[in-house]
Order: sequence, then C-alpha cells, then structure tokens
Amino acid sequence: MSATMHLAEYLFRRLHEAGLQAVHGVPGDYNLLMMDYIVPAGLEWVGNCNELNAGYAADGYARVKGIGALITTFGVGELSAINAVAGSYAEMAPVIHIVGTPKRAMQTRGVKLHHSVCSGKPSDFTMFAEMYSKITVAQENLWDASLAPDQIDRVIRQCVLQSRPVYLQVPADMIQEHVPASALARPLDLTPLSNDPEREQKVCDIIVERISNARRPFILIDAGTSRYGLVSEANELAKTTGFPTATTPFGKGIADETLSNFHGIYASVGEGTYVPYVESSDLIINIGPVHSNVNTSLFTTIPNPAVSIVFDQTSVTIDGKVWNVFPKGTLKRVLHLLNDTMLSFWPYPQLPCPRAALKRLPPAPSTGGLTQDTFFKRMSHFFQPGDIVLTETGTASNGGRDFVFPPNVGLINSGVWLSIGYMLGAAQGVALAQRNMGSQGRTILFIGDGSFQVTAQELSTVIRKRLGAIIFVINNDGYTIERLIHGMDAEYNDIAMWRYLDSPSYFGAPGDGSYPVFTARVTTWGELDGVLARESFQHGPGLRMVELMMGVSDCTDTLRLFLQMYASRKE
Amino acid sequence: MSATMHLAEYLFRRLHEAGLQAVHGVPGDYNLLMMDYIVPAGLEWVGNCNELNAGYAADGYARVKGIGALITTFGVGELSAINAVAGSYAEMAPVIHIVGTPKRAMQTRGVKLHHSVCSGKPSDFTMFAEMYSKITVAQENLWDASLAPDQIDRVIRQCVLQSRPVYLQVPADMIQEHVPASALARPLDLTPLSNDPEREQKVCDIIVERISNARRPFILIDAGTSRYGLVSEANELAKTTGFPTATTPFGKGIADETLSNFHGIYASVGEGTYVPYVESSDLIINIGPVHSNVNTSLFTTIPNPAVSIVFDQTSVTIDGKVWNVFPKGTLKRVLHLLNDTMLSFWPYPQLPCPRAALKRLPPAPSTGGLTQDTFFKRMSHFFQPGDIVLTETGTASNGGRDFVFPPNVGLINSGVWLSIGYMLGAAQGVALAQRNMGSQGRTILFIGDGSFQVTAQELSTVIRKRLGAIIFVINNDGYTIERLIHGMDAEYNDIAMWRYLDSPSYFGAPGDGSYPVFTARVTTWGELDGVLARESFQHGPGLRMVELMMGVSDCTDTLRLFLQMYASRKE
Ligand SMILES: Cc1ncc(C[n+]2csc(CCOP(=O)(O)OP(=O)(O)O)c2C)c(N)n1
Ligand SMILES: Cc1ncc(C[n+]2csc(CCOP(=O)(O)OP(=O)(O)O)c2C)c(N)n1
Repeated sequence: MSATMHLAEYLFRRLHEAGLQAVHGVPGDYNLLMMDYIVPAGLEWVGNCNELNAGYAADGYARVKGIGALITTFGVGELSAINAVAGSYAEMAPVIHIVGTPKRAMQTRGVKLHHSVCSGKPSDFTMFAEMYSKITVAQENLWDASLAPDQIDRVIRQCVLQSRPVYLQVPADMIQEHVPASALARPLDLTPLSNDPEREQKVCDIIVERISNARRPFILIDAGTSRYGLVSEANELAKTTGFPTATTPFGKGIADETLSNFHGIYASVGEGTYVPYVESSDLIINIGPVHSNVNTSLFTTIPNPAVSIVFDQTSVTIDGKVWNVFPKGTLKRVLHLLNDTMLSFWPYPQLPCPRAALKRLPPAPSTGGLTQDTFFKRMSHFFQPGDIVLTETGTASNGGRDFVFPPNVGLINSGVWLSIGYMLGAAQGVALAQRNMGSQGRTILFIGDGSFQVTAQELSTVIRKRLGAIIFVINNDGYTIERLIHGMDAEYNDIAMWRYLDSPSYFGAPGDGSYPVFTARVTTWGELDGVLARESFQHGPGLRMVELMMGVSDCTDTLRLFLQMYASRKE
Repeated sequence: MSATMHLAEYLFRRLHEAGLQAVHGVPGDYNLLMMDYIVPAGLEWVGNCNELNAGYAADGYARVKGIGALITTFGVGELSAINAVAGSYAEMAPVIHIVGTPKRAMQTRGVKLHHSVCSGKPSDFTMFAEMYSKITVAQENLWDASLAPDQIDRVIRQCVLQSRPVYLQVPADMIQEHVPASALARPLDLTPLSNDPEREQKVCDIIVERISNARRPFILIDAGTSRYGLVSEANELAKTTGFPTATTPFGKGIADETLSNFHGIYASVGEGTYVPYVESSDLIINIGPVHSNVNTSLFTTIPNPAVSIVFDQTSVTIDGKVWNVFPKGTLKRVLHLLNDTMLSFWPYPQLPCPRAALKRLPPAPSTGGLTQDTFFKRMSHFFQPGDIVLTETGTASNGGRDFVFPPNVGLINSGVWLSIGYMLGAAQGVALAQRNMGSQGRTILFIGDGSFQVTAQELSTVIRKRLGAIIFVINNDGYTIERLIHGMDAEYNDIAMWRYLDSPSYFGAPGDGSYPVFTARVTTWGELDGVLARESFQHGPGLRMVELMMGVSDCTDTLRLFLQMYASRKE
C-alpha cells in the first residue's frame, strides 16, 4: 500500500466499508474524473437516465441496503435530484449525495461557469448547497485534503445513524488530492451512541412496570421502527407480550403479519376499524411514530400521549415525559427484563383479523372485471418471504394497505412525501439491492399509469442491469385519486394513453432471450389468475410487466371513505 | 360583470392579458381547485408527464411567446421543477411558477402535511420558497385577498420586464377568495421604464460620435439581445452601419444571417476565427452580452471594455463608463440619429463568410456515413423562415453553431445552464407557442440520445396535443461529448440502446392517421437527402422523427478544438 491515495479513492472505499455496493447517478464534466474511482473501490456503477430517477433509485437502494449513494454534477444535476433527496429526508432514507463541483479557485473568484446562474458572484457556488442544507442532516465541502477524510467519515456516519440524506461537495481539483493511506486503517465508526446504563435501567423499569400492569394494551408499529433499527425488537415485543399489535399505513411491512395478535392497519376509516379499543387503552406502545396526515387518518389515530410509551429516534416518552435514551438499547433491555416478568391478566379484545378475513373472500368470477376493493386483498396470495413490494402513491398505495403478507415481506410505500414516479426509480434500486445482498426475494411494484409516466425511462436501467422485477401498471386512464378528490371528468386529470406493454421492447430489452421479458394485459380475474399461476412469472428471472385494466373511478372502499373525510375536513 | 371574482380567476385573466395562451404543469391536491380557472380564462391547459418537463416546456414557450406559466403542487411538484426554473433564471426566460400550497391556517400551525418534510414546524412551509428566492426575481405569497391583485400584477410585471422567472404561492383556501372585479379594469402595466430624455440624449451623442469615427468597428450580438427586446434594433444597427457583425454561440439566431456583413459565430477556436481583427478593433458594439465560459470560448472572446459600447439589461457602458439608461430607448435613438450621420471612411476587413463557405461544401457521397463536421452545415438548406430550431447541449448544440440560417429563423440553444433533456420539453412548449401565435414555422429539434432519454416521455405531450415537430435524434451510443472530455470508453459514458423510432407508437400516437407520424433511421447522406426531400417531411403536419446514426466519438472539428482547450486550461 502506498503512503497516500487520491481523495476520491478514500471516499469510495469508505462508502464500501459502510456497506455500499452500488452508486447511482449521472455523469457531468465536473464529476467525470471522480467516476474513475467507483469501480476500483469495489462498487457497481449505475448510470440512470436522469438525476431525479437516480435519486429515487438511490433512495430505494438505501431503504433495503442501509445506505445508498447518488452522484450528480454541479447545478443542473443536483437540482434535478433535489426532490428525490427531499423525499429521502422526509421519509428517512440514508442516502449520500455527492456533487462534483468546479475547481476551488474558480468558485472563490465567482467565475461565470456553465451549470451556474452566472451572476459572477461567489454565491453562485454556495446557493445550491444552501438549498440542500434544508433537506440533509449533514453537509460538507471538501476544500482541504488534510481535513477531508474526517469530513467524509462524518457525513457517512450521520447518514447511517440518522437514517437521513447527507450532502457532500467535491471540487474537481480535490479528486486527486492526496490523503494518507493510513486514514483507511482506522475503521469507519458507525456504532450508535449508547445509553447511560443507569438511566436506561430506570426507563426500562418504568416501561416493564407499565407493561406488566396493562389491561387494555396496544402496540402500534410505525415507519420509524425500521429507520431506527428496531424491526426485530418491535416484533419480539409483540410476540413476547402477545399484546394486540397493529401497524400504521406507512409502517406496514415491518410487523410480522403472521402473528395471531396482529390486527392489520390501525385507521379510523374503512371496515373493521377499532378506534374505540385504542382510545380506551391503558397502554399504547408506539414504536417509531410518523404523524403525517396521511399516516394518521388525518390526525385521528395519534395515540393518547398520556397512556403511551413512544419510541422515537433519540428518546423514549412515557406517559408524556420525555427520557433522553436511545430506543434500541432501551427496547432490548425491556425485552430482556420481560423474560422474568409476569404480566397481569388482561382480556384479549375482539379485534379484526385481516388474515382470517382474507379466507372469507368470495371467489372471483373468472370473467369478472378487476376491481380495486378485492384486487389488493387477492394479491396477498402471490407474495412470498423475501419479497419487497412497492406501492406507488395513488390508488396503488392505498390499495396496498389491504395486502396480507407472509413473514419477511418488505413494503415500501410513501407516508410523508408522496411524490409520484418515485416508486419506479426506487424499484430499480430495490431490485439491485436485493441482488447485491444475494436475496432470492422478488421486487414487485404496483404503480398507476400517471405515476409510471413520470419516471418511465428508468425501466431501461432495470433492463440494462438485467434486474429481476415484476411490475403491475394500473391503467385506469388518468389520475384517478385526483379525480376522486376534485375534477372527476376534468381535462387536467387526463393523461396520454401509452402502449405500456411495449415498454420493455422500447427501452431496449434484448430480443435474443438473454434476458427474459414477459408482458400481459389483464382485464378479468381469470386472466389475472392465469398470469399469476405461471411458474416463470412467479420465479423469473427477468422483467415481468402486467397492465391491469381498471375502472377510471374505481378505488377501494377505504380510500373512498378516507377521501370523503379529507374533503369534509378543514385540514 | 359581478362585483367580485375569485382570486384564481383574477390570476389567470391577468396572465391572459399579459399574452399568455397556455399553462403547463402537473396537478396535485393543493392546486386542483385552481385548475378549474385556467380554461375559462381563455388559456389552454397542458398537462405534462412530470414537473421538470413542464418547467422546460413553459420555458420553451416563454422564449417564443414572451411569457410562460408553470403550475405545480407544493413540495414534490415545485422541487421537481426547480432545475427547470433555475435554468429559466440563468438563461433569462420569463416564466411564472405558480405553486398551490396548503391552507393558511395549517401552514401557520406547522401541521404535518403530505408533501412537506413533516418536521411539525412552520418552516416546513417556507423552506421551498426560500430555495426559490435564489432563482427567481420576484416572489409573492397570496395571503390576504385585499393585497393579492397587486401582488399578482407585480410578479407578472417583473417576470416580463426582467425576462426572468417569478414565484407565486397560492394557498388552497385563497383560490376562491373574493377580489373586486374592478381590479381587472385597470390594465396590467407592462410598459418598461423609460429613460430620462436628457441623459439618454447625452449617451446617444457619445455613441453616435464613437460610431461615426470608428475605423475598425465590430458588432457582437449576444443572447441578452432577445431578452432585452433589442432584436430589431440590433439588426437595424448592423444594417445601417454596415459594420462587421457576428454573434456569440448563445446569441445565434438573433442576427439576420443573410446580411452580407454577418460573419457567423465569433469564437477563438475553429476554422476562420478572426480574433486578431476584434482585438485590434477601435469600437466593439456588444449587445446583450452573456459572459459564461461556453459562450466566450472560455473567456477569450470577451471584447475589450476600453473600446466597447455594451448594451446590458438596465445600463449602457461606454469605454468602461457605466450609464444608467435602458438599452432599448438608447438604441432606438441612436438609430434615429444615425439617419443623419455620416460615418468616417473605414476599410472593410477580410472576414470569413459562412454562407459563402457553405456554397463551397463538396457534395456528400450518397453512400457515405454521416459525419458531424458536415452534417450541421448541410442541414442549413433545410431551414425556412419562421422555423425555430432547438439544439440540445452535447454535440448537437456545438454542431448547431455551423448552421447558416435564412432570415427569421430562431435558435434555442443553451449557453449557461446546459441541462440536458431541456430541449425536448422546450420543443413541446415551442411547438405550442408557434401554434398559439398562428405561425407557419416549424419546430425542429436536434438532440443526442443521452439527452433524449432524460425527458423522453414529453414526446407524449407533443403527440397528445397533436403538435407539429421535427425531431432529429443523434444516436451515437452514449454521452459522446463527455467521452471527448474524459472516459472515452468508460462505462459511465454508456447508455441503454433504446428503440428510438418506436417512440411515437409507444407514447400513444394514434394509428388511424388522424395525426401523421413519420419515422426513419438514417445512416448515409443519401438516406438523409431522401428523407429531407419528402414534401410531407418538410411541411408536415404531425410528428417527424429521424434517428441519425453517428460515430461514437464523432464531433465537429470546432468542438474537438474547444474541448482540447477546455482540458488544457486551468479553468
Ligand atoms: C411529483 C408529484 N406531482 C404531483 C403529485 C400529485 N398527485 C398525487 S396522486 C396523483 C395521480 C396519480 O395517478 P396514477 O399514478 O395514475 O394513480 P391512480 O390514482 O390513477 O391509480 C398526482 C398527480 C404528486 N403526488 N407528486
Ligand atoms: C441534467 C444534466 N445532467 C448531466 C449533464 C452533463 N452532461 C453534459 S452533456 C452530457 C451528455 C449528452 O449526451 P447526448 O445527449 O447523447 O449528446 P452527445 O454529446 O452524445 O451527442 C451530459 C451527461 C448535464 N449537462 N445536465
């Protein structure tokens, strides 16, 4: 090993050390040189069609792999991606956004360079970073080689620990600056901060006390659970206590849905809601809450703080009192303590069970047209352990709340940002992450036609990378969820009618069978069953795309009720 | 007329009054209600596939029509478009960006709404506006109906007068607030500020004096010329004085290229440069300069200020001294004064003439493959008065510098922002603007395969709106201009090979002949001639798409020289 290495080598080797295996992005002349260091560092390069899509892909990849990376060029590249990174921030995905910027001297002098607004002021080179400071949890600009390794380590650490995006500017003349090779010898420190044992013990004692005395208990698992690394602890808690457990819409896919004490999505609209039980609970254990309007049935399902134990990212709140302890250590210790704790007797309440309800679903007439209210429920039988399912904002995301999952199925839906088009880019990232991790699980996307059109070209990256993916496009001729909100027949809710099933061919799928492609248009239940039954459809490899013909105003009953509530409320 | 009207009606009727005929954008639940007011105000709605593309289309529309409008929804929509609006800012296109935001009370209370980052703070509702304040020249948030009409008038005025984007937030509960109908009676004031006549006269006297004594004069027309409304004055000046006239790359398309004193692009690389003449000039009249690196051969063609008269947006600088007069009035008066002014004798210099050079171009062997160095020159014969030609960043934009235009052909290329993908969206906007204006001119786009992939889906809007367009896709298998800069064979400069000619069909062109579509792949000069000779190709209607097969490392000699210079310079 030579005594020094180029800064870009350090950067990418550190990212590899952090668990990254692939980098998404688009080249540009300010970052071209940096690109040369990606593959030698053991990382795969994924060139996306545009930067927004690259940001979505890096986000999808990060949600599965624990870290994702996006490289763009200064100005045009980074601004094209900013909506994706803002989404990573809002929904807590650990993405590092690396921006190749002009040489330092030119920035300092405010030279009128392409991809800047050319005002001639040095602020031309800080304005985009200022925008990014609002939607990333750490920012660094590599300006001095002696400080750069620490800056790099810091942003990677913040990215992973906070599970949020970070922003790193690399001026073109820094890429080959020398940093000591020894800097790599010190391992990248990604260990979370630990709790003060005494304080943790104290908090746990209170929690265990509360648990053991609960008479009407409830566990609510939310999206923060996966972001804060609490998935197995949350499921362990549900198993150990046997408490009635539910998920929020955004948290769905985290809880083990095969547990007999799992009761689906907790919502205040739709069949089988049980708000009264939760409102009369004496203990609600709320893990990783995200209190956006769409995740809380418009704020109607936020648990009563006075009877709640809330596990947040850096604190635990018990009956309204905030304790500054990290949730992971706390939950682990609680679980340990519960081994030796007798719970008081509590009567198991009458609560709906989605899995049982699924069994009662009447058979679908094979010539009958697809309807959303049963489509999503029926699709439950298709999923297998290891799958990652993505449901795009629109009727798909709402419909996907009806899925009943086998164990170990991940779901990516959007509960805060809700940017349509995200899921197709994300699906590319997810499929790659699964391959990088050696998973046999499938990547299965449900997406509306309107959303598909936003980022359609990223299908070509799925094809180019020979990724496995199953894509259901809901063709309901426009922005159905918008129609249901306002303007049922309005022109602004119409979209062009594409020939969706030509997508694989158009985007370059090979004709020689080296990468299998399957497409089908499905109008009836019988046709759907025929497709789903195919062995090669179920197990791949390759791209499988199904166009689902659905009614222009069709949606699940639950969504219809929710939208009525949305329309009638002041907020 | 009733005594009041809804605020949204006022907004769109004012925009109509300002010359707007179409609104681009994507609906979202915060702006849905506002959409209802677009068509009744006499405006056409153009729903694009995504917001970035909508921003590009609105920009293209604005460059032709003098004003463009973009509507997006809060957060996800506006951030998706920010790169387009930054481009409008950098390159001076008058676009009004209207954002539908949540109801006021919810913003004030920092409610955790979808499309916000859900921090729970009121800053969730100001952060995107703060980003936009950096790349727009005026911003307003309609919060009080009694102030709103003035706010609307102000942003429209700034948009048009400064020829730059403005940003307008409309909370959902403001859309139907009442404003007095009488507000419309007062005409929208878009008249530019006028100069103090005495000061203007003084400046003009100096200018006329300088002009009449010039011995080695030179006129350099740059992109600001069209932004500041100086196109006819600039051409008049070139005609009246007979001074050798040239254009910058970014300014190309403004000067009348049929004038015998027009000498093409002024650059310091490429055949027939004449830097020595300009450097020894005693008078350079520089109209609307934009001194970005790519527009000035890396700052080597910036005229010597000591001998220059520079017409900027709000000032005129003479031999280094700045005069605060607007250029339009000044130039008009100068032209008027020149009617009665004798110019001193000055010897016409030996300067290259692109039109004459074009005549000397040897015939192309009909079986020979296309090469960039002659392709663009040859295409000159295809253009007709009224055409608007767009050349995308990459080899196309550089190649387009070789075009020799008939009179009254517009060119849109990028000289500052250089965001690839822009031109396809812009072409949709341009084609619509031409139709709105009743122009018989064609919209002709030259775009690389890599750029095409960035925004490809917007072709579906061209089709859906039944617009006329001619699109040449340069298929050179990847990011050629990047290859020439760095990484000739690098994976990161590769892209997927799409089946480009399937685009019209894939994106929904009707099969019934109601909207004609023509596609062709062209490899040789003979094939190209065959396509260009077709009457229906030349005159349409409909979509005509040609895939030009070109060498993976082929570019014009001028571009190659420029990139060598770029690589060897420190900046
Ligand atoms: C980037 C972005 N732009 C606009 C919106 C507003 N929006 C939300 S859902 C939707 C329509 C989705 O239509 P589609 O994907 O066809 O799903 P459907 O509801 O029809 O099944 C739109 C435009 C958004 N969420 N994100
Ligand atoms: C939004 C954006 N991303 C990245 C770049 C960097 N960039 C400049 S030119 C170019 C390649 C263009 O390739 P193509 O359109 O195929 O044109 P070619 O040079 O091959 O003819 C890229 C990626 C950019 N200018 N804008």
